[in-house]
Amino acid sequence: MILIDGRPGTSIPVMDRGLQYGDGVFETTAVINGRPLCLDAHLRRLASGCRALRIPVPDARTLTTESAQVAADQSRAVLKIIVTRGAGGRGYQPPPDPVPTRIVSIHPWPDYPEAYRTAGIDALFCRCTLALQPALAGIKHLNRLEQVLARDEIGRSDCAEGFVADGTGAIIEGSMSNVFLRQGRLLLTPDLKDCGVAGIVRAEILQRAGSLGLEARVRRIMSTDVLAADEVFFTNSIIGIWPVRRAGDHTYAAADFAHRVAQALAVAGYIAPA
Amino acid sequence: MILIDGRPGTSIPVMDRGLQYGDGVFETTAVINGRPLCLDAHLRRLASGCRALRIPVPDARTLTTESAQVAADQSRAVLKIIVTRGAGGRGYQPPPDPVPTRIVSIHPWPDYPEAYRTAGIDALFCRCTLALQPALAGIKHLNRLEQVLARDEIGRSDCAEGFVADGTGAIIEGSMSNVFLRQGRLLLTPDLKDCGVAGIVRAEILQRAGSLGLEARVRRIMSTDVLAADEVFFTNSIIGIWPVRRAGDHTYAAADFAHRVAQALAVAGYIAPA
Repeated sequence: MILIDGRPGTSIPVMDRGLQYGDGVFETTAVINGRPLCLDAHLRRLASGCRALRIPVPDARTLTTESAQVAADQSRAVLKIIVTRGAGGRGYQPPPDPVPTRIVSIHPWPDYPEAYRTAGIDALFCRCTLALQPALAGIKHLNRLEQVLARDEIGRSDCAEGFVADGTGAIIEGSMSNVFLRQGRLLLTPDLKDCGVAGIVRAEILQRAGSLGLEARVRRIMSTDVLAADEVFFTNSIIGIWPVRRAGDHTYAAADFAHRVAQALAVAGYIAPA
Repeated sequence: MILIDGRPGTSIPVMDRGLQYGDGVFETTAVINGRPLCLDAHLRRLASGCRALRIPVPDARTLTTESAQVAADQSRAVLKIIVTRGAGGRGYQPPPDPVPTRIVSIHPWPDYPEAYRTAGIDALFCRCTLALQPALAGIKHLNRLEQVLARDEIGRSDCAEGFVADGTGAIIEGSMSNVFLRQGRLLLTPDLKDCGVAGIVRAEILQRAGSLGLEARVRRIMSTDVLAADEVFFTNSIIGIWPVRRAGDHTYAAADFAHRVAQALAVAGYIAPA
């Protein structure tokens, strides 16, 4: 089911700036038993992205109502919310009073093997890189060609996810996820000030690290750090947590913290239960 | 008029990857007396962009026919061709056998003041920058948020166009155009290997520089070079050539070459006549 500005629909005008320029933002989250997980946090990030792009922020209650409407009677599904700047303007130049387009849609739950969450995955070091763009960093915007290229590269490998670095070699994220390293009692995740998407699950893990016995640090991370870590895992709102079993030629013996934090987040309703 | 996959239409499916991810490429060119200018060159760049993104290249004859269809009976208009990867795939991951969407549309000729081509324009040094992304450099793809941000900045100034630099301070292009500097008998334009769109008019000017008495060089250009130049001008397929009258506090006395190359290109049918 798709709601476009609150009405059932399947298509949008060609002139919408979401298509013309990728001029918009989006969110995806898991729906379990009719309820979108962490919807408030996703709507806060959506609003923050809109403000950064000077797109009027849609009313959160409206988006909540529309999300509940498409999520009703879904036992397990994916909710996607897109907000574009709507139509109008003069070429790239935004219209002075944009009327955003809201697209709230529901999608089948992806059929990733259960083993990805338990035994873990093999991960690639992607050749393609992320550009440094502080003005767009952290925002889940609709300009996602870099992720398409990265995902295409991973899809042609035997790996389920990959590490994507910026042009300087610093690991930033997975192609569709954030990345964490545990090194002893330190929990590390890349700094996203220059590129990358600041995930809702990432924020929650950073928040909970202390109570789970680790000290969290956001910093520059290189591939050598990944290979030297005790455990490594990818996170997002749909996959939950995927421990890494192998990266390049390196295998990881441990996934204890990944499993522990996954259970804590599932119990708290932040990610889908197994 | 809009043709979507050859049929008149006004909307595209929400699930089209052009909207979901900006997963596609586009071209715009001037239509004069029913004829799109330099269409073959635009279709070659479109094909080159598709190949870089691994999108199947639409048949050039089909796009030519559809362009002629929407351009017929237009004395002066803008033709836009969008090709997306179509719908499908698994999240960011492209489908194995994508069926591209073709959108061929006609738009009103923009009402820029005639003085922009004759007396020239005032130009801004934009604060926003372009990210370095060699994998996407030169391609006219649908991820255009950087241009939206730049154009938004220019729209809130009293300038008609602006110089956009990369993160290292090198001037790359205008917000919707390429940029040239003339310094004595040298014609300079920025290197686009790391970012920027390689314009059709830019290529033609580089080609013709010699016969117009200048030596063309593609190289790194800084704002100090812009301020030290004898003349500066912006180019694209719609605006043609806009000489710069003022950049920052600096005014330019000359626009001779800009006017000369504009006339040559108009006579040769590469840009719209005055």
